[in-house]
Amino acid sequence: MATISGRTFGSDNHAGVYPAVLEALAAVNSGDAVGYGEDAISKAAVARLCAEAGARQGYLVFNGTGANVLALSLLVRRPYEAIICAESSHLNVDECGAPERVLGSKLLAISVPDGKLTPALIEARLSGRGDEHRVQPRVIQIAQATELGTCYSLSELRRLRDFGRAHDLLIYLDGARIANAAAYLGCALADIAACADVLSFGGTKSGALGVEAILVMTDGLAESAPYHRKQVMQLASKMRYLAAQIDALLDEDRWLVGARHANARARQLGAALETVPGVEIAQPIQSNGVFTAMSRDLAARLLQDWSVQVWSESPDGRVIVRWMTAFDTTEQDVAELARAVADAASQLPAPGVAGQTRA
Amino acid sequence: MATISGRTFGSDNHAGVYPAVLEALAAVNSGDAVGYGEDAISKAAVARLCAEAGARQGYLVFNGTGANVLALSLLVRRPYEAIICAESSHLNVDECGAPERVLGSKLLAISVPDGKLTPALIEARLSGRGDEHRVQPRVIQIAQATELGTCYSLSELRRLRDFGRAHDLLIYLDGARIANAAAYLGCALADIAACADVLSFGGTKSGALGVEAILVMTDGLAESAPYHRKQVMQLASKMRYLAAQIDALLDEDRWLVGARHANARARQLGAALETVPGVEIAQPIQSNGVFTAMSRDLAARLLQDWSVQVWSESPDGRVIVRWMTAFDTTEQDVAELARAVADAASQLPAPGVAGQTRA
Amino acid sequence: MATISGRTFGSDNHAGVYPAVLEALAAVNSGDAVGYGEDAISKAAVARLCAEAGARQGYLVFNGTGANVLALSLLVRRPYEAIICAESSHLNVDECGAPERVLGSKLLAISVPDGKLTPALIEARLSGRGDEHRVQPRVIQIAQATELGTCYSLSELRRLRDFGRAHDLLIYLDGARIANAAAYLGCALADIAACADVLSFGGTKSGALGVEAILVMTDGLAESAPYHRKQVMQLASKMRYLAAQIDALLDEDRWLVGARHANARARQLGAALETVPGVEIAQPIQSNGVFTAMSRDLAARLLQDWSVQVWSESPDGRVIVRWMTAFDTTEQDVAELARAVADAASQLPAPGVAGQTRA
Amino acid sequence: MATISGRTFGSDNHAGVYPAVLEALAAVNSGDAVGYGEDAISKAAVARLCAEAGARQGYLVFNGTGANVLALSLLVRRPYEAIICAESSHLNVDECGAPERVLGSKLLAISVPDGKLTPALIEARLSGRGDEHRVQPRVIQIAQATELGTCYSLSELRRLRDFGRAHDLLIYLDGARIANAAAYLGCALADIAACADVLSFGGTKSGALGVEAILVMTDGLAESAPYHRKQVMQLASKMRYLAAQIDALLDEDRWLVGARHANARARQLGAALETVPGVEIAQPIQSNGVFTAMSRDLAARLLQDWSVQVWSESPDGRVIVRWMTAFDTTEQDVAELARAVADAASQLPAPGVAGQTRA
Repeated sequence: MATISGRTFGSDNHAGVYPAVLEALAAVNSGDAVGYGEDAISKAAVARLCAEAGARQGYLVFNGTGANVLALSLLVRRPYEAIICAESSHLNVDECGAPERVLGSKLLAISVPDGKLTPALIEARLSGRGDEHRVQPRVIQIAQATELGTCYSLSELRRLRDFGRAHDLLIYLDGARIANAAAYLGCALADIAACADVLSFGGTKSGALGVEAILVMTDGLAESAPYHRKQVMQLASKMRYLAAQIDALLDEDRWLVGARHANARARQLGAALETVPGVEIAQPIQSNGVFTAMSRDLAARLLQDWSVQVWSESPDGRVIVRWMTAFDTTEQDVAELARAVADAASQLPAPGVAGQTRA
Repeated sequence: MATISGRTFGSDNHAGVYPAVLEALAAVNSGDAVGYGEDAISKAAVARLCAEAGARQGYLVFNGTGANVLALSLLVRRPYEAIICAESSHLNVDECGAPERVLGSKLLAISVPDGKLTPALIEARLSGRGDEHRVQPRVIQIAQATELGTCYSLSELRRLRDFGRAHDLLIYLDGARIANAAAYLGCALADIAACADVLSFGGTKSGALGVEAILVMTDGLAESAPYHRKQVMQLASKMRYLAAQIDALLDEDRWLVGARHANARARQLGAALETVPGVEIAQPIQSNGVFTAMSRDLAARLLQDWSVQVWSESPDGRVIVRWMTAFDTTEQDVAELARAVADAASQLPAPGVAGQTRA
Repeated sequence: MATISGRTFGSDNHAGVYPAVLEALAAVNSGDAVGYGEDAISKAAVARLCAEAGARQGYLVFNGTGANVLALSLLVRRPYEAIICAESSHLNVDECGAPERVLGSKLLAISVPDGKLTPALIEARLSGRGDEHRVQPRVIQIAQATELGTCYSLSELRRLRDFGRAHDLLIYLDGARIANAAAYLGCALADIAACADVLSFGGTKSGALGVEAILVMTDGLAESAPYHRKQVMQLASKMRYLAAQIDALLDEDRWLVGARHANARARQLGAALETVPGVEIAQPIQSNGVFTAMSRDLAARLLQDWSVQVWSESPDGRVIVRWMTAFDTTEQDVAELARAVADAASQLPAPGVAGQTRA
Repeated sequence: MATISGRTFGSDNHAGVYPAVLEALAAVNSGDAVGYGEDAISKAAVARLCAEAGARQGYLVFNGTGANVLALSLLVRRPYEAIICAESSHLNVDECGAPERVLGSKLLAISVPDGKLTPALIEARLSGRGDEHRVQPRVIQIAQATELGTCYSLSELRRLRDFGRAHDLLIYLDGARIANAAAYLGCALADIAACADVLSFGGTKSGALGVEAILVMTDGLAESAPYHRKQVMQLASKMRYLAAQIDALLDEDRWLVGARHANARARQLGAALETVPGVEIAQPIQSNGVFTAMSRDLAARLLQDWSVQVWSESPDGRVIVRWMTAFDTTEQDVAELARAVADAASQLPAPGVAGQTRA
């Protein structure tokens, strides 16, 4: 995939960063500051984010893979403890096996059509507890929003949390797109965070240059975090420049305002695409992703012009194409994309048999 | 340690960043770019750095620990292969065991007074080759400049390289401060790089916000790098903002000019401190670090005002205090520090017995 | 589970060992022998087994987990390389995550009803090759006989081998019960072995006290084996006592004769059980395991008297109970078991709706 | 090294096994027994050994590497926790890096002339506690007897235990030759065991075929042991045959009687060798090993006939040759060896300058 001008809709990480983020970097660029987060700027930004989330402790890291592995390092105390996750999760599919390599732990992946785990699905994977031949489930890993653009409702999250507590399972919530979820649910960050033992707060996809945070909600889990962060190569020396990004996102609720905007653009796109013959919306649009089922031919045509991903294959022979919006996607960008898809679809012969949507 | 105003001399990572680095970030902050380094900006910056070093391939990462672990991942093919390093190396002392955790490999640490390995010292650690009960040495890890502020000469580096080739050992050169070494030696980056199979190029300590590069010099070692970088949590999604930092450092030879400046400040500081009674220069000043032996009392007094480190204990009962300069340290900063040390020393009773320097 | 008198049918490792195995231990118990396999007895036994299998090199280890992890250590060269296996495989289910911990690798588990992988199923898991975000499939792991008592035919094995070669995938064959497969197929050990790059040869379940062998069929894979064997804690110091067991199994083809016997007892048991109302044979009987579907009530009753396992739950609400025979199971043992199952079934109310078998 | 007839003196694992051990194997070879240690024979043997040592729990494993890695798995709870050990320890030198690979932990090796750690030496390695850049010492690993044939006195062990408790360090005692230590000290197994949190009990070197035990002395450390044992590939399916070996060693105090015998033979050998010109005793003889300093020429000559090891090089240019006795070494064997050494020494020119002994 080559860089193309204009919007790519390929990922929310194709977007640039808020000018305010760059201004925040400049604002802290004065004089010396002790490294590794012991400076006043870093401490204040972490404290501010913790207050927003109701978290006990926070740790800034470089990227999402680092955030996921650090979070799980706090929760998995023994290499025979396992992590229950969705088969479609980024953790399972898109981390190149980093959890297995760095944690030495097994992922117990559960197939789910909408990216969301349920207590019943999890319970079915708990057999084998107490059997030395089996890994011992210890963590439930969920993403909010999910990798399929869906969101858990707060009551779904609370049921998972209660189920976890009842079954001695800790909850890690991958919040790479937690802003989009908060925007969709119309709730506070703390409402979502309260359902997890540890969560990540994604800054990069929300308009920062490169920063994520690990937030610890439950007592007794943070003690080892500084060492794990160092070991998993996520300890920044010039921490103030990560902290400044967090500050810029929290100022004026940029993290949330931008997510509301991105979500609205996704809904706009979904509304436009569902009128295009041969394109069907494959998942409910609950964040900034639009998943569309279409023929391979149409997808191939669109991939010539857009840096999007064929997310998966559909059992009916079609493919699922993912379109992502970001904090800076404009109405005009979306309108142009929708027009281009409609044009491409109209130039292909109509499919003989209408496919079924996945959602 | 709290943030203090003015220069800390505690570490070269206490410094801020070049304004030109921030300008470079702003310059690339326009429109979408595909992620993970596949954009034109990132490719160009990596190519430019490779050209400067004479490297085959380059990979940008977040920090020094990540750079070290990624580099060694390329060189250690089996977990029973071991890495020979100096006992005083950052790799051995200051990575919180990341190499052991992530590589699963053993470090064979060799005690050296000046931080520099020699063929003779390495050869003594090669016994046990072919014995299944012993780890098998595979990599020589060196730092240039070393953690003790010394530099290998080019002929020393070449002897190590030749020794490595003769003994089936690959060379990884930790270049967190390679700029300071190039400045000291008055040589090109490529001259140093040519003595390694893989090296790192440190951007963060040279005035960037947070970027390091892994440079692969030897054919056949880079194939697995993209996967390892992802697994060791060093793959940036918005790569252009790492690339822009590299560009800014290469522009106007900032990486080298700043290192020359920092080295000069270290020499200035050394010249001033060696006149202070009770303070002795403990290592040759060949980069931007000044290592001084002094009494515990004097060190304790200085640590009240400066965020410096007691680097180690000296067998004679004194301690070694490290002072670091950076690209933005001024002559005035150094003069103030030297005066403050002299004042502190003059207020303490003279030591009864003069200690011995380590150097 | 407590020890019970008589046959347990719970596992083929509940059986004792051949008296000839104990005699072989006594026969080598004379004088000193250098350790770790460098003695003449060990070398000869390994050479003899290699000749039987047509293998290039062989390595004796303690148990099946060790055999599996050692074999995969030879085949997986990088932690981002993944192992494709059946979801029901011992490797995936019953190793307590040892592969993930010790290899750091991801298992890509495929759901299969009969425990057998096919080229088509494997091919569907090869997407993502060349994508740095995805683990890279490198090994196909199969068991022969499978954990569900089924066997690959030689032509099925050859198709897998050819598929592997065509797709740059190596084949590891878990031969914990390879004797039962050879007995079922009526072929030579070498016929099966020729379809793998590395395989294990199970001694323990074949009447030894505790020994397995790793056999390397493909050039270039054995070089690292001695070091890996030591690292994965499978290097016996008094190796001659492992070697003697191998010798005893090869003498008079005990490994094969015993497996034929066990397979015949399994067929006898299957024939008896398929006449019991409420019991259905759930898998083809192709080795020494009999998998039966029955109601939970009947299973609960039988578990009071027999140390067998509820292998899995059936989607229809019934459970699958596994019965294993061994080299020393007698016709009388089987007849008694069959009678006991029939008695237990007759004392329970008939199920209202006949369940469906899995097979 | 080829097998040679007669005694090799190369290692105590060159010896065979007690006939009583083989008889014990035959005695348990009757009928089925449930696997993995859940049978009555295994439970009883473990309970018996625990009673002898005053241990809370015991776990049988295959070999010494497995014992070491399992024990440390119980004690190291996080990969950034480090293990303090002697540089000359088997753990550090002769496990081919298994601890680093399987635990992911760093060993902090301390150079000691006699193989024995002291509180003062350990204390010097505790700097860096609380610093996220440093591994955090958690375990003191000692061997009793040590790899150099020396023994800690009980009061030395108690001082280490008290030091450990005072500094939040757990103690793992590698007891591969604990029998020889108990014989030397004239104390009970429990006296030594009481100084450790976890220890191993070596069966293999004491006349068994292949069995070691991990004994847990301290509350709260055993919970995870079954899972770790399985993961580190040390869970035997036919456990009764490991248990029977333990029983045979405990019967008639064979473990201790044999060790007393072996120690006496070592003393006999030492007494004979110290009269040989050009041979010096390099370590106090406190167990079944005799370490001798001699010229390279003499060592080379002796290695032609004996499968012994050149243990290390001496700074004075000589080498250290290790001779080991076993439970079945006879007075005659020792006399013949001593005569052969004397003969070889007499045929070489006398060394010009007498070397220095290490002890």
